[in-house]
Amino acid sequence: MTEHNIRVAVLGASGRMGSEAVRAVDQAEGMQLVARIGRQDSLTQILDAGATHIVDLSVPEATQDNVRFAVEHGVHAVVGATGWDTERLERLQELLADHPEVGVLIAPNFALGSVLATAFAAKAAQFFESAEIIELHHPQKVDAPSGTAVRTAELMGAARREAGLAPSPDATTTCLEGARGAVVEDIPVHSVRLRGLVAHQEVLLGSAGEQLTLRHDSFDRASFMPGVLLGLRTVAQRPGLTHGLDGYLDLGL
Amino acid sequence: MTEHNIRVAVLGASGRMGSEAVRAVDQAEGMQLVARIGRQDSLTQILDAGATHIVDLSVPEATQDNVRFAVEHGVHAVVGATGWDTERLERLQELLADHPEVGVLIAPNFALGSVLATAFAAKAAQFFESAEIIELHHPQKVDAPSGTAVRTAELMGAARREAGLAPSPDATTTCLEGARGAVVEDIPVHSVRLRGLVAHQEVLLGSAGEQLTLRHDSFDRASFMPGVLLGLRTVAQRPGLTHGLDGYLDLGL
Amino acid sequence: MTEHNIRVAVLGASGRMGSEAVRAVDQAEGMQLVARIGRQDSLTQILDAGATHIVDLSVPEATQDNVRFAVEHGVHAVVGATGWDTERLERLQELLADHPEVGVLIAPNFALGSVLATAFAAKAAQFFESAEIIELHHPQKVDAPSGTAVRTAELMGAARREAGLAPSPDATTTCLEGARGAVVEDIPVHSVRLRGLVAHQEVLLGSAGEQLTLRHDSFDRASFMPGVLLGLRTVAQRPGLTHGLDGYLDLGL
Amino acid sequence: MTEHNIRVAVLGASGRMGSEAVRAVDQAEGMQLVARIGRQDSLTQILDAGATHIVDLSVPEATQDNVRFAVEHGVHAVVGATGWDTERLERLQELLADHPEVGVLIAPNFALGSVLATAFAAKAAQFFESAEIIELHHPQKVDAPSGTAVRTAELMGAARREAGLAPSPDATTTCLEGARGAVVEDIPVHSVRLRGLVAHQEVLLGSAGEQLTLRHDSFDRASFMPGVLLGLRTVAQRPGLTHGLDGYLDLGL
Repeated sequence: MTEHNIRVAVLGASGRMGSEAVRAVDQAEGMQLVARIGRQDSLTQILDAGATHIVDLSVPEATQDNVRFAVEHGVHAVVGATGWDTERLERLQELLADHPEVGVLIAPNFALGSVLATAFAAKAAQFFESAEIIELHHPQKVDAPSGTAVRTAELMGAARREAGLAPSPDATTTCLEGARGAVVEDIPVHSVRLRGLVAHQEVLLGSAGEQLTLRHDSFDRASFMPGVLLGLRTVAQRPGLTHGLDGYLDLGL
Repeated sequence: MTEHNIRVAVLGASGRMGSEAVRAVDQAEGMQLVARIGRQDSLTQILDAGATHIVDLSVPEATQDNVRFAVEHGVHAVVGATGWDTERLERLQELLADHPEVGVLIAPNFALGSVLATAFAAKAAQFFESAEIIELHHPQKVDAPSGTAVRTAELMGAARREAGLAPSPDATTTCLEGARGAVVEDIPVHSVRLRGLVAHQEVLLGSAGEQLTLRHDSFDRASFMPGVLLGLRTVAQRPGLTHGLDGYLDLGL
Repeated sequence: MTEHNIRVAVLGASGRMGSEAVRAVDQAEGMQLVARIGRQDSLTQILDAGATHIVDLSVPEATQDNVRFAVEHGVHAVVGATGWDTERLERLQELLADHPEVGVLIAPNFALGSVLATAFAAKAAQFFESAEIIELHHPQKVDAPSGTAVRTAELMGAARREAGLAPSPDATTTCLEGARGAVVEDIPVHSVRLRGLVAHQEVLLGSAGEQLTLRHDSFDRASFMPGVLLGLRTVAQRPGLTHGLDGYLDLGL
Repeated sequence: MTEHNIRVAVLGASGRMGSEAVRAVDQAEGMQLVARIGRQDSLTQILDAGATHIVDLSVPEATQDNVRFAVEHGVHAVVGATGWDTERLERLQELLADHPEVGVLIAPNFALGSVLATAFAAKAAQFFESAEIIELHHPQKVDAPSGTAVRTAELMGAARREAGLAPSPDATTTCLEGARGAVVEDIPVHSVRLRGLVAHQEVLLGSAGEQLTLRHDSFDRASFMPGVLLGLRTVAQRPGLTHGLDGYLDLGL
C-alpha cells in the first residue's frame, strides 16, 4: 500500500459534481480519497480522516464555513462551489494572512479547455480588427449570453481598449432587431440554443485576409475532473488565494 | 475549328460579374463567346453575332428589356441581374406563353454550393427539434441578416410549419437584448460581421443527441461561374420560366 | 384511455439500444408499448400482447428468426439489429412476397441527421471539383475509417463517376506516408481519434471560390430514437422491404 | 507634412509579397515609404533614401547580403525572405554582436493569426489526452503535410513529452492505409487538398468530456501585412536577432 501525501476529503460529495469528484479522486494516481462529506456531516470528519486537502463542491450557503474551517486547520482547499463575491473573497484573504502556509483555489470553471480558450481569446483580441463571440447551449438554459461568454467578452474588450483598438468595423445600416447580437464591451455576442448540445463557445477574430477561431466544446461534467485534479496537485505549492484555474496553468499571458 | 451550338452573348459585360462571365464562357468547353454587350450597345448585336443564348448580368433598369428582346427573337436567357419582382415575372411568363420553345432562367444565386445548402436546409428542417442560422460576412455589408439567410429561414420555417413542428425549444428568461438573434419565420438568425470574411452561412439543426450542420463558404465571385455555365448548358432543354438554379439540379426535394 | 393502432413489442429490450427504445416508445404519442421481449422469452409473447409492430434491436444470431416470425403473423417490423447480408435480405424478400400487406424496414442507421448528411453528400458530390471526408470518433474505436465514412465515400464516388467527374485535383509530389488519408472510391478519407468525442463526420466539397461542408455530430444513443419512431409510424404504409431509413424520408434524391 | 522616425525601404519590391508591402507601408500611420528596391538596384539606395528600416522580401540568394548591408549601416531589418539556415543565422548573430544597437527580425510567417494559433497549440497540448492536426490547402500545393503543420506538431510533441504525456490513445486495429494520417512527433497530421481553399489549419485537442479547437484560416496575402507593420514598429526596440514573430507578441508562453 502506497503512502500518499495528498489525502482528500470531498465536500458536497452526494451532489452531481461531488460524486464525479469522489470517483475521479479515487481513481487518480498520487492521491487518496479519505472522506466523503455531505451536508448533514460534521466538518470534524475532515480532521478525523487525516485529510490534507478538501475539494469543496457544496452550495453557496455552506462553502464559506467549509473553507474557513479548512484554512484554520491547515488544510488546503480546492473550491468549485459558487457564491464567492468580492466581500467573501476579501474576508478569506484576511484569514489566509494568518495562515500563510495554506493554499486556496477558488475556480469558477474547472474545464481546462474552457479556461485556456478564454485566456487565449483575451490575449489574441488585441491583434485583430474584428472580434465576435458565438456561444451555443442546450435549450433548457435560462440566461443568454452565458456567463462564460460575458466574462470572455469583458476580458477581450479590456485588452482591446488597452491596446487602443476601435470597435470592430460594421457598416450595417439596415438590420432586423437582434441580428447583430448583444454587445458586451464592444464585442457582439450571439447565443444559440439547440437541442442536442451541451455547452460550446466560439471566439471569432478577423483581420484582412485571415481568421482565427478558438472553439471549446463541453460534452460532459467529466470535463471538469482533470482541472480538479490539477488543482489538488498544485494548491499546496501556491500558498494564499488563487482566483481562477488559469493561475495554475503558467500561461504567462 | 469546332462548331458550337451554344453561342453566347454576355450583357453587362463590363461589370464585375459580367467580366468574370466573359472569361468563364470563353474558356468553357462546348460553347462559344460571340458578343460582349455593354450598357451603350444596341441589343441588335445579339442577333448580328448569331447568339443562341444570352447571359444577362446587367442592372435592374435594363434587365427586363434585355430579356424581352431575347425571348422575342428566340434566344434563351440565363439571368443573374436583380430586380425581378412578382409583376415582372408575371409579364415575362405571359411573353413566354407566346414563345413556347424559349427557356429563361432567373437565378438570384449562381453559387452551386449555396443553392444546394439552402435546398438541403429546407428539406432537413422538418426532421429536427431545433433550427438556427448563423450568417457571416465582411464588415462592409449594409444589411443584416443577409438576403440568403432570410430566404433560407423562410423556406425552413414553411417546411417546419407544414410538418406541424413547434418553434425550437428555448427556456431563456434572462436575455441581453439581441443575444438570441433576429427571428425570421420562427428561426433565430445571427449575423456576424468580420474583417477577412467574404460570405458564409451555417444552418444548425439539433435533436436529442445529434446535430446536423450545413455550411457554405463563398470566397470569391469565381464561385458563381460553374452555376452560370450549368445554366447555359441546360436552359434550352427547359422551355418556359425557371426561377432559381435549384430547378436545374434535379434535387427532387 | 386512448386506443392506439400502433402497438409495439420491443425485441432485445434489455440491451443498451433496446432499453432506450422501450423508453422512447413508451413516451411517444400515437403508439403503445405492449411487450418487452428478451433473449430468453418466447416470440409468442408478440402475439399474446396483441402487437401490430415489432422493433428488433436484438443480435445477429436472433434477428432473422424474429423478423420471419413477425412477417408470418402479419406484424410489421422495424429492424436495427445487424447481420442482414445479401442472402438474408433475399430470403426475407421472398417471404414478404407471400405476405404482401406487411412492411419491414431494415435500417443500418437510425440517426436522422446522419442519414440526411449521407444522402445530401451523395447528391452534392457531382457538383464540385474536389471532395474529401473527415470522420472523428472516440479513441476506443477499433476500425478506421468508420463504416459510415466508407459508405458515404462509396455513394459519393459512384455519383461522381456517373457524372463523368475526374478524381479531385491534387498536385502533391512530396508526402509523408498517410498525410493524404485513405482513398475510398477516389475520395480521400481521414480518421481522427480524440478522447471526448463520440461519432462525428464532415464531408468537404470544394470548387473555385466556394466550399460546402456537411457535418453530422452524434453525441448520444438518444439520437437514434426519432428515427425508430419515424420507422414505426411509416412502416405499415410501406409494404414490402425497405433498406435504409432514407427510403422513408422522401428525399427524392 | 509629418516627420516619421520609421523610414522604410522595401527590398524585393516588385515581387508579390513585396508589392503588397509597398502598399501597406505607404498607407500605414507612423511610418514612411522611402524606397522600393528591386533585384537590379544598388543597395546604396537604402542609404541615399535615408531609410532607418528595411523590409526584405527578396529571394534566398539575395537576402543574406541585403541584411548584412543593413546591419553594417545601422539600419534595422524585418525579413520575410526564406533561406536562413542555422549557419546563416549564426553568422548574422556574430555580425550583430558588433552592432549591438541594431535589431533584426527573421520571420518565417507574418500572419499574426497563424503565429498565435501555433503558440497557443504548443501551450495547450500538455493539458489534453489527445491531439491531432488537420491542415487544408488548395490542390496546387506540392507538399503534404504543410510546413506550418509539421512545425506545429513538433512544438506540440515536444511540450507533451516534457510534460510526461503518453501518445494519444488509439485502439485502432483494422485500418485502411493512410486513414490515421501521418505521424509527426506522435501527433497524427491529416492533409486535405480542396479546390477553393487557400491555407487553413485546425488543431484538435481532446480530454474526457471536452474538446478545444484552434483554427486559422488564411484567405489572402493581405494577412501578412499587419505582421510586417508590427515588425517594423517593434524591431528598433529589440536589438539583436529575433527569430519568429511570436518573439514580439509578448505571449509569455
